[in-house]
Amino acid sequence: MKKIRVGVAGYGTIGQRLADGVAMQEDMELVGVADLAPTLSVRALYEKGMPYDLYLVEGADSSALDAQGIPITGSFQDLLGKVDVMLDSSPGGVGAKNKALYEAAGVKAIFQGGEKNDIADVFFHGYANYEKGVGQNYLKLTSCNTTGLIRAVDCLDRVFGVEKVAITIIRRMADPGDYHRGLINALQMEKAPSHQALDLMTIMPHISATGILVHTPVTHGHIISVVVSGKQKISKADAEAAFRAHPRIRVVTIEEGFAGNSSFFKYGRDLGRPRGDLYEIGLWADSIVESGDDIMFALHIPQESITIPETMDAIRAACNMQLTREEGTAMTNKYLNIGQFKGIFRPKEQ
Amino acid sequence: MKKIRVGVAGYGTIGQRLADGVAMQEDMELVGVADLAPTLSVRALYEKGMPYDLYLVEGADSSALDAQGIPITGSFQDLLGKVDVMLDSSPGGVGAKNKALYEAAGVKAIFQGGEKNDIADVFFHGYANYEKGVGQNYLKLTSCNTTGLIRAVDCLDRVFGVEKVAITIIRRMADPGDYHRGLINALQMEKAPSHQALDLMTIMPHISATGILVHTPVTHGHIISVVVSGKQKISKADAEAAFRAHPRIRVVTIEEGFAGNSSFFKYGRDLGRPRGDLYEIGLWADSIVESGDDIMFALHIPQESITIPETMDAIRAACNMQLTREEGTAMTNKYLNIGQFKGIFRPKEQ
Amino acid sequence: MKKIRVGVAGYGTIGQRLADGVAMQEDMELVGVADLAPTLSVRALYEKGMPYDLYLVEGADSSALDAQGIPITGSFQDLLGKVDVMLDSSPGGVGAKNKALYEAAGVKAIFQGGEKNDIADVFFHGYANYEKGVGQNYLKLTSCNTTGLIRAVDCLDRVFGVEKVAITIIRRMADPGDYHRGLINALQMEKAPSHQALDLMTIMPHISATGILVHTPVTHGHIISVVVSGKQKISKADAEAAFRAHPRIRVVTIEEGFAGNSSFFKYGRDLGRPRGDLYEIGLWADSIVESGDDIMFALHIPQESITIPETMDAIRAACNMQLTREEGTAMTNKYLNIGQFKGIFRPKEQ
Amino acid sequence: MKKIRVGVAGYGTIGQRLADGVAMQEDMELVGVADLAPTLSVRALYEKGMPYDLYLVEGADSSALDAQGIPITGSFQDLLGKVDVMLDSSPGGVGAKNKALYEAAGVKAIFQGGEKNDIADVFFHGYANYEKGVGQNYLKLTSCNTTGLIRAVDCLDRVFGVEKVAITIIRRMADPGDYHRGLINALQMEKAPSHQALDLMTIMPHISATGILVHTPVTHGHIISVVVSGKQKISKADAEAAFRAHPRIRVVTIEEGFAGNSSFFKYGRDLGRPRGDLYEIGLWADSIVESGDDIMFALHIPQESITIPETMDAIRAACNMQLTREEGTAMTNKYLNIGQFKGIFRPKEQ
Repeated sequence: MKKIRVGVAGYGTIGQRLADGVAMQEDMELVGVADLAPTLSVRALYEKGMPYDLYLVEGADSSALDAQGIPITGSFQDLLGKVDVMLDSSPGGVGAKNKALYEAAGVKAIFQGGEKNDIADVFFHGYANYEKGVGQNYLKLTSCNTTGLIRAVDCLDRVFGVEKVAITIIRRMADPGDYHRGLINALQMEKAPSHQALDLMTIMPHISATGILVHTPVTHGHIISVVVSGKQKISKADAEAAFRAHPRIRVVTIEEGFAGNSSFFKYGRDLGRPRGDLYEIGLWADSIVESGDDIMFALHIPQESITIPETMDAIRAACNMQLTREEGTAMTNKYLNIGQFKGIFRPKEQ
Repeated sequence: MKKIRVGVAGYGTIGQRLADGVAMQEDMELVGVADLAPTLSVRALYEKGMPYDLYLVEGADSSALDAQGIPITGSFQDLLGKVDVMLDSSPGGVGAKNKALYEAAGVKAIFQGGEKNDIADVFFHGYANYEKGVGQNYLKLTSCNTTGLIRAVDCLDRVFGVEKVAITIIRRMADPGDYHRGLINALQMEKAPSHQALDLMTIMPHISATGILVHTPVTHGHIISVVVSGKQKISKADAEAAFRAHPRIRVVTIEEGFAGNSSFFKYGRDLGRPRGDLYEIGLWADSIVESGDDIMFALHIPQESITIPETMDAIRAACNMQLTREEGTAMTNKYLNIGQFKGIFRPKEQ
Repeated sequence: MKKIRVGVAGYGTIGQRLADGVAMQEDMELVGVADLAPTLSVRALYEKGMPYDLYLVEGADSSALDAQGIPITGSFQDLLGKVDVMLDSSPGGVGAKNKALYEAAGVKAIFQGGEKNDIADVFFHGYANYEKGVGQNYLKLTSCNTTGLIRAVDCLDRVFGVEKVAITIIRRMADPGDYHRGLINALQMEKAPSHQALDLMTIMPHISATGILVHTPVTHGHIISVVVSGKQKISKADAEAAFRAHPRIRVVTIEEGFAGNSSFFKYGRDLGRPRGDLYEIGLWADSIVESGDDIMFALHIPQESITIPETMDAIRAACNMQLTREEGTAMTNKYLNIGQFKGIFRPKEQ
Repeated sequence: MKKIRVGVAGYGTIGQRLADGVAMQEDMELVGVADLAPTLSVRALYEKGMPYDLYLVEGADSSALDAQGIPITGSFQDLLGKVDVMLDSSPGGVGAKNKALYEAAGVKAIFQGGEKNDIADVFFHGYANYEKGVGQNYLKLTSCNTTGLIRAVDCLDRVFGVEKVAITIIRRMADPGDYHRGLINALQMEKAPSHQALDLMTIMPHISATGILVHTPVTHGHIISVVVSGKQKISKADAEAAFRAHPRIRVVTIEEGFAGNSSFFKYGRDLGRPRGDLYEIGLWADSIVESGDDIMFALHIPQESITIPETMDAIRAACNMQLTREEGTAMTNKYLNIGQFKGIFRPKEQ
């Protein structure tokens, strides 16, 4: 069977992870990545021996790359001529400009959460609305927080039915290696309701959602506290069982050593994953509490890598590789090795 | 009228603020403060010219104080012989040992939140259960987070009736000047439910409460996100109006410049308050959102100074100075200049 | 004797401290402060009851202030008409524009370190080159780090003679309450040599200086590590004695409780100073070490308040209030209560 | 040729990196690692499929490991019976107790920097005193900061001769994933001189060294500012050339994107190294400045992985694998792929 040919625009924090993710899909071919300057990520690509071909985005000046001896395979147009679908992880706003190029070249595209919703035909989440993306040309992924949040809410919704969600996002402000975003000794408020709650309602219109977001001076993953009102009472045991059964949720405990957000980062590094990336959200079993008939819990979002699986789902949907949510997500999970290891996170009593 | 004579045990972060608070009450007399070593706070007291007399706690060695020329007025027993009531802000656990001394000396005592509940006859909050403390000998205050949280919940409860509360505490991990507590680039989980939710239920047993607590690497005040289920629907406008009417709640907006927790710290410093202390909780009007029939909002807790007013209330209750909640809290507010300035925090449309 | 009339342009972090500093000088009169919007600092001024008159800077829109009921005394021109000298603590670059207004109005001006050197006739430091500022119309202060650094280097230079200085600046990146500058879990390099070393050579041209600056994610004061090469060997004991004799240097030890930069911040708050401000640099006696014939030590710079005394010196020089360094700095020190308390910082053996 | 058989005691931050380092040496065999509980690192080892055999240290209770199904190959004694040399990265102080076991079992051992110097026959650094370790039974490595510092100083010393060193260590306080060590919004002083300066003099007794250490609230690597007095003047160009020629020093610039310590961490991750580990120190070309005849510069220490190469050197020396510094370090560098990539870090003008 012919492999779907994929390109990546923007080889930054998300772009390099998308490239790696595509390279792991045996039914896809990573044609190349596009960028415009010898950033640290591009320098690392070069030091690694150029495992991915580098193309130059529109308007880039190749001299800085040439000065370092970094080889360039071709132009952005050259790349578009060789692919079926582009993953656009350009800086916010650039994707909108790129879309005209994609349309002219007749290639599909998947945009990341930084773009506006109207850039795409479908605002997409692999688990919540896979079928809406099937065969479409332009999809936009949910942002990192929304992607992880919807995994957990959709998980409960499919088992118990969910009516209402109130979230508190404790947001990491920067990624490791960032110097241009910061916050020192401060927690910063955003005007409520947070966009993540609104985005959840766009994807899952049968649910009422609101939320408060607070920025914190850390880099290793968001924590979201969620209060869910089900159509019926959801017990702590039932919620935990549902979460444990979901391939893209790792249920952990503080006692196991997952003391906070940076424990996941450490664990991913100790696993030897490239960059220590984790594809699952973490969910603390010992954070789950009943609030009357509602259920409350806390989850962890590894912001750098969380959207990779759902982006792979999006390729599968857009390119008609699999036509159902179950098949599409299963194939992504298989190639990304998601959900295969359950042993170490099992509860003590098992 | 004879003034109530008050002593303070432990001249640390809380103790020095308690001493200042008592000194502002015109119907109380601050007899002195007790400590055991030339800490920075005691050195500052000395540099200021000893506005408060210093007594030595049991077992302290005076030589280090003597070496600096810091004058000592007497022993802990000497202090107990001159007071009607002691405010105990000793390190956690020491208060329990001191209680035997208070009983032997026949003085009343108010303990801070770090002690266990069973140290006292009453677990006390000035607004929520003032009358329970009237005439009692041993009171324990709620902790800083619980004190501020109860102000807001009690405020809604008295107007609308509250049935259920779900809180997310985004906790500051250390105070300015701390080196022995820390957290670097991490958000740390605590096992749920948080003790603040349990404490709220002890003070307000007609309410069901639960919550999740996350430690953050900052020093300037906790932020708590609260979801309140009323006996009836509480609208955003109604909640805001109730909060604005409460003397110990400052309703602010991000637009006014209160961007986060450290804005309150800056504002208190700019006000020229000693140490920049604020006695009110902050509550963001632009964080209030309706979640179906529930109401959700975020508040700020200045952890160093928040319990001072309720401790003054506790003296008033324990010593029968005022017999009702309304009279006791009003007198405290008057002497601490709380609630007199409302102008600058008014909404734009007014 | 007629008091020198002083105005302040820009009521921000530095401006409000300059205003307080002038208000403490019994031979000066603070005419008023100028700003353009209801910032937190201006709101706090209002809540305090307008101890200083507020004037509106050029081009400001008074409607936002009017909406809050904050009274405005007059225009910037009105203010210029009433003063002998302006202290300009406007945002960087605005001072250069204001200079034309000062020249037109015939008032002298003292600019803060954020402006370029050529804005002024003299690049000024109260201890190092006071006499150069006498009678001049336009002076520019050294920046916070340079001001404190020069105090220590000048102190040694006058006693022992200094030939060479190599500094490492461990810089705080933001002030408390800042949200627009940040750095998370990172130390950021600046290209060497640092401007502070170059500025020191401008003020003290007989000394050779260089240095490295590293930004750190903290708010409470810079720490500078200094290696000084004297014309002769400077022993640890000699250096410490010289520092202890300087009015604007507080010599402290870790053992006393000054564990780091935030200890000074805590100490200033515990002293009850407005905003906890300290006018002295801190210098750790237990950081002083001999490096062959060189001497090495670490000092602390309270960035928000450090330049206030030297700015008062600058007014004294520019307005011919005192004609010598000794007289000018002594008068500033007297009114700011600097250098009067030495007891608590004395070494143990005394 | 028979491979040297190596075991690792303590599978923590350093231990797992030592194990990986040994596994990369083609003339060594990693027999196994020893630990005592299902820490996150041990859980990750299990999830990876046990690439290294796990042995149980003395006194450990296997039940917690058994409960997770983590296989244990044998006891600590079993491990000692199969190895030629142990790498001891136990928590500080435990190594001293283990030494008796090593002596009884007749195995050599290399201790990490946390142990006291007298635990070993030789205080070792691969580049500075390799020959002293040849054939010895018990070696102790320098700590992370000292290891990296000595690389740079030894580099200059062998080319130009070094007489004196004054260092300012800007120390990271915790590792990623730590919750038990912290510092919030503070820079913490240590009493001078720092132990790293003293340790340098122990390894390089012909040099005079002193220094100041300041702890900072970050996790990604120390920065050290160094002032070196050579036997002759060392120019900036000469110093840079010497550093660029050293295999274990990466010379970088801010302009290339290495803005600070976390840039190295990001680069290591982007390189796809396990855990993002780097074995080289970073040295900023644009930090090198001349201070009269002295030379000043700043370097970066990746604290988690920096001692791995010198520990491999130590095995080579102790086990007589190579008898000279040149041969021993070259073999380590070959197997760890150190110093092979120079292209991207070349100066612009080349």
